[in-house]
Formats: sequence, structure tokens, C-alpha cells
Amino acid sequence: MKRLSLLLLFTICLTPVFGQRNDESAIRQIFDKALAEGLSYPMLDYLSTKIGSRLSGSPGAAAAVEWSRHVMESYGFDSVWLQPVMVPHWVRGQQEIGRIVNSRKMGTVSVNICALGGSVGTGPEGVVAGVVEVKSFEELKALGTKGVQGKIVFFNRAMDPTQLNTFAAYGGAVNQRGSGATEAARLGAVAALVRSMGSNLEDYPHTGGMSYAPDVKKIPAVAISTRHAEMLSKLLKEDKDLQFYIETHSEMLEDAPSFNVIGEIKGSEYKDEIIVVGGHLDSWDLAQGAHDDGAGCVQSIEVLRIFKSMGYKPKRTIRAVMYMNEENGLRGGLKYAELAAANKEKHIAAIESDRGGFTPRGFTVSGTATAKATVLGWKNLLEPFGLGDLGQEGGGADIGPLGKQGTILIGFLPDSQRYFNYHHTREDTFDKVDKRELEMGSASMAALVYLIDRYGIK
Amino acid sequence: MKRLSLLLLFTICLTPVFGQRNDESAIRQIFDKALAEGLSYPMLDYLSTKIGSRLSGSPGAAAAVEWSRHVMESYGFDSVWLQPVMVPHWVRGQQEIGRIVNSRKMGTVSVNICALGGSVGTGPEGVVAGVVEVKSFEELKALGTKGVQGKIVFFNRAMDPTQLNTFAAYGGAVNQRGSGATEAARLGAVAALVRSMGSNLEDYPHTGGMSYAPDVKKIPAVAISTRHAEMLSKLLKEDKDLQFYIETHSEMLEDAPSFNVIGEIKGSEYKDEIIVVGGHLDSWDLAQGAHDDGAGCVQSIEVLRIFKSMGYKPKRTIRAVMYMNEENGLRGGLKYAELAAANKEKHIAAIESDRGGFTPRGFTVSGTATAKATVLGWKNLLEPFGLGDLGQEGGGADIGPLGKQGTILIGFLPDSQRYFNYHHTREDTFDKVDKRELEMGSASMAALVYLIDRYGIK
Repeated sequence: MKRLSLLLLFTICLTPVFGQRNDESAIRQIFDKALAEGLSYPMLDYLSTKIGSRLSGSPGAAAAVEWSRHVMESYGFDSVWLQPVMVPHWVRGQQEIGRIVNSRKMGTVSVNICALGGSVGTGPEGVVAGVVEVKSFEELKALGTKGVQGKIVFFNRAMDPTQLNTFAAYGGAVNQRGSGATEAARLGAVAALVRSMGSNLEDYPHTGGMSYAPDVKKIPAVAISTRHAEMLSKLLKEDKDLQFYIETHSEMLEDAPSFNVIGEIKGSEYKDEIIVVGGHLDSWDLAQGAHDDGAGCVQSIEVLRIFKSMGYKPKRTIRAVMYMNEENGLRGGLKYAELAAANKEKHIAAIESDRGGFTPRGFTVSGTATAKATVLGWKNLLEPFGLGDLGQEGGGADIGPLGKQGTILIGFLPDSQRYFNYHHTREDTFDKVDKRELEMGSASMAALVYLIDRYGIK
Repeated sequence: MKRLSLLLLFTICLTPVFGQRNDESAIRQIFDKALAEGLSYPMLDYLSTKIGSRLSGSPGAAAAVEWSRHVMESYGFDSVWLQPVMVPHWVRGQQEIGRIVNSRKMGTVSVNICALGGSVGTGPEGVVAGVVEVKSFEELKALGTKGVQGKIVFFNRAMDPTQLNTFAAYGGAVNQRGSGATEAARLGAVAALVRSMGSNLEDYPHTGGMSYAPDVKKIPAVAISTRHAEMLSKLLKEDKDLQFYIETHSEMLEDAPSFNVIGEIKGSEYKDEIIVVGGHLDSWDLAQGAHDDGAGCVQSIEVLRIFKSMGYKPKRTIRAVMYMNEENGLRGGLKYAELAAANKEKHIAAIESDRGGFTPRGFTVSGTATAKATVLGWKNLLEPFGLGDLGQEGGGADIGPLGKQGTILIGFLPDSQRYFNYHHTREDTFDKVDKRELEMGSASMAALVYLIDRYGIK
């Protein structure tokens, strides 16, 4: 009896160690699979360079839906299906023109602009007007109708370069893009010209979502490249009466049918508990959408593929979801959560990768204190793989609606330094993605899903 | 009296907090300067794109010496001087040719090769021979003279993709490059063909240093691109008698005169205690040397420039050193240490940046246990800037010789994932360097130099 007790004690003491060893070795195996035999990179190559841009409602988006369905079926996931959702259908139309007209110093100069997503176009007659530059909505309001009426408002607040996290710098500047046109229209402006949300001085403009308050006149809203924003600002100091010409042809069409694309491995023990891992399949029209968010999509598919290739049979149900329409409507994320509620599905955790395919640093967690502590408790297992940053709050846009149902939300957190070089521009192309960085992201997400599958999260 | 004691106690208790606050704010200011007003990026632009490749003894190297002297003088450092050193002078010569000849499956195929640095050339007659593939020196030895005589030995051990640290993967493969020719020559081989030290499958070869043991015949040694190494290996499996043609024109000339370039800010209190921060000015001939090691050079200059622009007057003497000839001889590092000893200079710490201009992760430390503990003790100040990886052993090639004099050696540790995409290739160009990543590296090094200057290190 005494011997049995000792043996029992011995066993109990050793269990966590063996558990830890198993987990260490499983995570090591996940990284080995991703780095030596991973398929996220060739998947992203196809999605970025063969399909390319895929704004909601576009032929590219339809191709991307078919491609991801096909790819997940080819990997033999237990089920793959499409979830219908109606999406906004905005189109850019023909070539856009931005021009400083008859400036005293430089005469007429072409300027790199692009319509912001959701903006009305100027039509072929364009808009020509004087320019008033502001750095904030407060400055704009101080000018009042008298200072703004009939003018183009030039929102020129830069992303703060001293922010170490570029997403924080983005957060400090992006309200100009989202609401600049509305605030300018309230004071009688004829257009909004917004400094691009880029970390550096560049020649190409960054598009991105904007919307109009229901009670204002819809005026054209365009982004100007950061370098041309600097030039315009300098010229305005010497010649405040210069004129600016904008011509855009964008328009919002009727909503279009599209789909979320879902692949699933059924859980062996708790099949009703769902862990979802995903990214968004749509991209802006100007971009290949390699980092935003092709990377998140292929990493999510890769999580399930790695499990299958390891012969790992999850206890819980694991789903990879390619959400449609994150960029200009979030309809896919909303639809997914709506159906999860209607079908009484229990989503214990939702992980999103939508910060690019860069070297992994950790995860953000949003939900209960217990969940945050659980993820922090895995630090000893995750930190050896560079995943030490586990203490920040955060989830992801597409999974946000699931949070309202009590799902723990987790955001994949890669290095942020290069993201806003490419974000929403023609430069977001496959060649900007590093193979190893992308693959380490897939492995990081698989490692976290593995731990949540083994131990649950509440 | 009681009041005085209390005040004293209060002061003592607050001192470390105030010290910490001052340090926090100084480091914050360093990062702000680097990220908002930094000059490392335009410096690197000039060094990489206007000067370009700068192998020891080349006109490019001479131009780089003049450029760095001029730049440091223009920033008004207290002194700037050149330290003469004789360097090896190896030249590649005219275009190199690699070719699979009359293979059964593919006929004659061009193969991307380049001579390894230090190798003799084949001359215009070239070398043509059968190929024997090995993965290790043990495999080679097992073949013996009978299996190797008259053949080209093809060293095809890949860098291990499952190593998270690419420098570890490099360390596990690079002996093929350094000593492959020697080991092959011992068994009568006519040339060594070495798989490039690259993390991925690529079309371009990676050059790099090699040397011959004094007792062997000098046979030509060339690198083959990783993609062509895979192709050759596959062809050999089907056609082990295929012939390979190599033509190279490299040769070692007489040693040439060159210089280390040194800039200094004199210490205000302990001017005899020197903290040195540096990188190497030479690069391989095929590369612009943007990451290797233009980045380290401009970051080192930037440390001193940031101090001056902040008005920070160091207590100790701070030197930026651009070492000459790290790539194929280390003569600059050896000369610097030799003169430091001869002049009885006291170098308390030497920091080297030679792992590329990528996002900073920390520092390696080599020296006393006290020094390692001192750097780890600054973790609370450094980790908020991404510099949490402080526990690894390591220094740098150029500063190695100073270590023998008791100098604490410190290596700047950036993210390693992309380094071996570019290392020693035509792809190591300025456009592969991200502005913010480079600037954060400059700030990281300045922050560490600031702490060592304030508190010393032993």
C-alpha cells in the first residue's frame, strides 16, 4: 500500500513534466513541419500572383473563394463549405488624376493619388479648388465654414514615426481617412485629400476604407502619397492660393453575392467545442494582398494541414475560416458570428492573423482574465519560438463579432515595422513576403491552436 | 536632525527611481531621434548605391574609407582618423562559367556558380570532370582517394531549415565552404563545388571566405546556387557519370594598403576608458554590402551622431570603428587590437553590429559573469524597445581580438530570418533594408552604449 502510494505520488509529480515534454515536442514538430515541408509559401504565391487583387464583389474575390475551397478539399479536411454573404461592391473605375495647377513655384505638377474605398467619384469633369491644410479635426473646426467652404481639405497628419508599434502610429492617424470627408463636408468642402497611412516617405498612395455620415453630402475622398503630401504642404506655405485638380471615377454598386470559405477537422472528443483560426480573403483592388491578408489565409489553412501531416487528431473541432469583406464592410465576420449564434455553435476561441506575414512575436488576447492568464501560462512553451509577447489586449476585426458571444479572441502578433510600407498599396506583393517569416507564423498559430485544443480556454 | 535623516532616507530611496527615470527618458529620446530624425538610412543609401561593393584592396574599399572619414568629420566628432593596415587583395577576374556537360537527361545546362573568396581560378582552360556528391567530410573520407581522385567534389549539405536561428543553421553548414577544397584536395580532387549558404532555394550563388591548408594543392573552389545544387543532385542520381565544367579567373594578388576608419567623442570624466562600437567597412565583391555590413557601419556612426544631436556628453570615450577586411582576413580587427595594446588603451567594452539591419531583438555578451549580469540587469530598460534577448553568449569577428585583452564583447542581435537570403550575394542591396528596422538598430546600440557609459561594465 505504501509502495502504491509512493508510486502514485511519483506518477502525479511526473505528469506535468511529461505533459510539458510532450507539448514541447509537439510544438517542435509543428515548427519543423512548417519550416522544412511547409506549403504556406507556395499557397501564397498562387493567391497573390495568379489571383491577385480581390476586393469584395470583384472577379478576383470570386476566384479566391473557389481557390481556397479547392485547396482545402485537396488537403482532405473533414469538411469544406461556402457560407453565402452579400457584400458591398465598390469599384474604382478608370485612371485617377491628381494635379497641382498653376502653382507659382512649380507650375502644374502631377500628384499620386487614389480614391479611398467607399468614396464617390468626381466624374469626368473632376473637381478643382483651393486647398486648406489641417492636421486634426480640431484645426478643421476652428477654420469653420468660412475657411473651408468650396475648398479641398488636405488632412496631413503623419503617422508618428517614434511609435515603436506601427499599428499604434496608424491608430493615431487613420481617423482622417475614415471620417475626414464627413468632417470636411459638414463645413462645405468639395473634396477631402488625405495623407496616405504609410510609415515612410513613398511615391505611391495607400487606399483604405472610408464612409460618410448619413447626414452629409458625399464629397470625393482621395489619398495622396506621403512624399507628395510633403511637397504639397511645402508649396502651400509659399502659395496658399494654389489650385488642386482631382478626377476619380469610383462608385458604389449594388451589393453582390460572395462567400466565407470554411474548412474543418472534426474533434475526436469535444467535437462541439470549436476553435477557429482565420484571416480575410478580400484585399484592396490596388494590391496583390500578399501581407493583407493573403498571409493570414494561407497560415490558417496551414494550421489544419500541419495537424493532418503530423497525424495529430484534435480533441476539439478546428476550423480555418477565410472571411470575406474585412476591408470595406466586415460582412463576412458578421455573417459568420450570426450563423454561429443561429446554429448554437460553441466557439471557445477565435484566432486571427491580419498583421502581415512577418516574424512572430506573440499573441494578443481579449476576453476573460482566466483566458489571458492561460495564454500567459504557456509562455515557457511559446517563448523559445520567439513568441514572448503575450500580455497585450486585442483580437481582430473579423472575429470581433464572435467576441460578443463570449468567444475568447486572439490576435497573431508579428513584427510590425514593415507592415505600413505595403498596406493597401500596389507594393503589397508576394515578393515582400519572406518564406521563413511566413512559415514561422503558420507554426506559431498551429502551436497555439494545439495548446488550446489540449487544455481548453475559458 | 530627525527631519534631515528622513530627508536623507527619502533621497536615497528615490535615487534609483530617478536614475531609472532619467535612463528611461534618455533611451526614449535616443529612439525618438533615430526614428524621427535619423540619418543611418541616407548614409547607407550612399554607401550601398553610390559606392557599392568594397572588397579589401578594391577601389570601392578605398572610396568607402574616404567616405566614412568625410561623413564622421562632417558630423563634428572630436577626432576622426585612419589606421593603416595591409590587407589581402583577392580579385574575381572575368565572367565565371559553370556547366553540366552532356547529361543524359538534360544535355548541357548552364549552372549559376561563383568562385569562393580566396580560391585560385581554373584559368581559361577550365576544369572538366565527373562529380561526386557528399554531405559531410566523413562521407568524403569514406570515399577515399579511389572515389575522389580526378573528380569534382560536390558538397551538398543544406542549411538546416528547422533551426530557428539562421546563424545556427549557417554554423552547421559553413565548414564545407571554408575547408571543403582542402579536404577534397587531400584525396586528389580537381575542384570543390559547394552548395551556397542560403536559407532558401535561390538562383544566385553565395560567395564567402575559404582557405587552403598549407600542405595541400590549391584546387578551385566555387559556390553553386541552392536551386542548381538541388538540380545537380537530382541529375547525379540518374546519371552518376555526368561531367561538370568550371571556369573561373580569380587570383590572389600582393597585399594592399588600406585602413580602419575611426571617429571619437572624448569622455568628460573617464576619458581613458573607451567604449567602441563598430561594423566592418569591406564587403564581398558581388554585393552592395547593404546588410553585410554597411548597416553595422552606419549604425555605429549614428550612435555618436545621436549623442551629439541630443547634447549628451559621454563620461567615457566613445569610438565608432569601421574595420577593414572582416570578410577575408580580419586584418583590420587584428590591427585595431594590436595598436590598442601597444598604446596601452583601456577598452572596457566593444560592440559589433554584423548581423544585418533587421528589427532588434537584443545583444549577446561575451566576457565576465559580472558583465553578463550587468547587461541582464538592464532588461527592464531595454525590453520595452524589443531588446529582451540578452542572455546569449557571443561577440563579433572584428572585436574578437580585443576580447583577449579583457574587453567585454557585445554583439548586436537583430532578427535573423532574412539575413541568409542576401548574405554574400548580388541580392545584398540597399532596397533589402527597411528604414525603420535599420534606425531601431542604431537606437538600440546607442541605448546600450549610453548605459555602459553611465554605469561602466566589468
